[in-house]
Amino acid sequence: MLSHIKNLILDMDGVLWRGETPMPGLVDFFATMRRLNIGFALATNNATKTAVMYTEKLARFGVDVGPQHIITSAEATAAYLREEYDVGTAVYVVGDAGLHEAMRAQGFDIVTPEEAKGGRETAVVVAGFSRNATYEILAMGAHLIVRGARFVGTNPDPSYPSEIGPLPGAGAILAFIETGTGIQPTIVGKPGPIMFQQAMRRLGSTPQNTAMVGDRLSTDIAGGNAAGLNTILVLSGITTRAEAENGDIHPDFIFANITELAEQLTMNNEQ
Amino acid sequence: MLSHIKNLILDMDGVLWRGETPMPGLVDFFATMRRLNIGFALATNNATKTAVMYTEKLARFGVDVGPQHIITSAEATAAYLREEYDVGTAVYVVGDAGLHEAMRAQGFDIVTPEEAKGGRETAVVVAGFSRNATYEILAMGAHLIVRGARFVGTNPDPSYPSEIGPLPGAGAILAFIETGTGIQPTIVGKPGPIMFQQAMRRLGSTPQNTAMVGDRLSTDIAGGNAAGLNTILVLSGITTRAEAENGDIHPDFIFANITELAEQLTMNNEQ
Repeated sequence: MLSHIKNLILDMDGVLWRGETPMPGLVDFFATMRRLNIGFALATNNATKTAVMYTEKLARFGVDVGPQHIITSAEATAAYLREEYDVGTAVYVVGDAGLHEAMRAQGFDIVTPEEAKGGRETAVVVAGFSRNATYEILAMGAHLIVRGARFVGTNPDPSYPSEIGPLPGAGAILAFIETGTGIQPTIVGKPGPIMFQQAMRRLGSTPQNTAMVGDRLSTDIAGGNAAGLNTILVLSGITTRAEAENGDIHPDFIFANITELAEQLTMNNEQ
Repeated sequence: MLSHIKNLILDMDGVLWRGETPMPGLVDFFATMRRLNIGFALATNNATKTAVMYTEKLARFGVDVGPQHIITSAEATAAYLREEYDVGTAVYVVGDAGLHEAMRAQGFDIVTPEEAKGGRETAVVVAGFSRNATYEILAMGAHLIVRGARFVGTNPDPSYPSEIGPLPGAGAILAFIETGTGIQPTIVGKPGPIMFQQAMRRLGSTPQNTAMVGDRLSTDIAGGNAAGLNTILVLSGITTRAEAENGDIHPDFIFANITELAEQLTMNNEQ
């Protein structure tokens, strides 16, 4: 049933943990993947945290995973752009530390709002969630796009959960610039295909031997399906079995949680 | 031909002036309206300037007009909300000085971002263009809307012209909050009907005896048509005669400029 799947791209919240609580069987799940030699990448649309922050969280849960297994939409964005633009290319960033670091790590030259206003030639405007965004920062991004810079967004999430309730996410930042310019961004994160493609590049895998594992039909499963991957829905997060069975978006496989997924992977391998 | 029209709602830029240059015949146009006893309101989507700033501009062009003849989308928003909410109602404002002043002048109690974060009950979130907008200011507006506050936008203009080219306008601010909340605002300014209704309230006029005069088909004319007003397109601004004749939006009358409009108004009155 899953015997053709040799690589997993895993969503994290709702799959591996819920907030600060690890899913039951988390340690065994990673042990199973390693025993069966299944490649894995942990992928998140969150462009504000770094890979190391996720490895630290997993370590607290008893799982030892190196940062090379983590791919954030910020890193996927920077790696994707590096395929098309040389080191030293001038790039304007609307984002927090995670995105700035990822772009610098790929060797891009970050354009400041003052330089943008002054007319500095800029190839790309990369935008994602930013708690530090101001009208001036957003407007200078829009200005560069109107002047011809390419517009790339880390992820389209309209909001994110906070202690006081949902607050505007990267999608709101992108909507501001999109409305101000009349130009739509290339979206890297889920449900767009680019982060999946970047994860497969790291894994050295193909859509045929890779499955996206997630808890959200509209992002993980719809995006995985659109990118031609196998898709596995787990019901430990936001989607109920009834929603999964009655919706318009169809995963290839449905499991209750990662424990059931690990059992199935083991059975296939032993047959 | 225009004999039923006793009141004019006039767009300003492209009709009365272009940037800092008054249209030929501007002084005569106002003299004609006064001689014929035609009521007039000068209406603008710009929510950042005050009425007095427009009277000063007109004075520089030799036209003496009191601030009661000027209606900005900020003033229209405040007056509209005052019809539905009592003095002292708590209102959160995303906007610059013009909008804050208009809301305070109507007796509303302005909620700060800190108070919003602290959970202060707020009836309405009013949003418009703001050079001082930050993520925090925008996000707290979104937070209040998610908690149940009504969402009202001064005007939907996606961009405005600046010295370095178009920059994001009120529409970009609204798109941010709309995306972050999933809730659409009530729009006061053109092409919405509310500013026209507020102008007619000031004039004591009806849609039947009032005409909207503007240079833009998509805002002035489409909005005026939708509000049931007579509509007059002048070709001294952005729209060409070819565009006017071949478009989907049809003004009731087309004139080259305010001089031709003044001649027609005079002819009708003399017949």
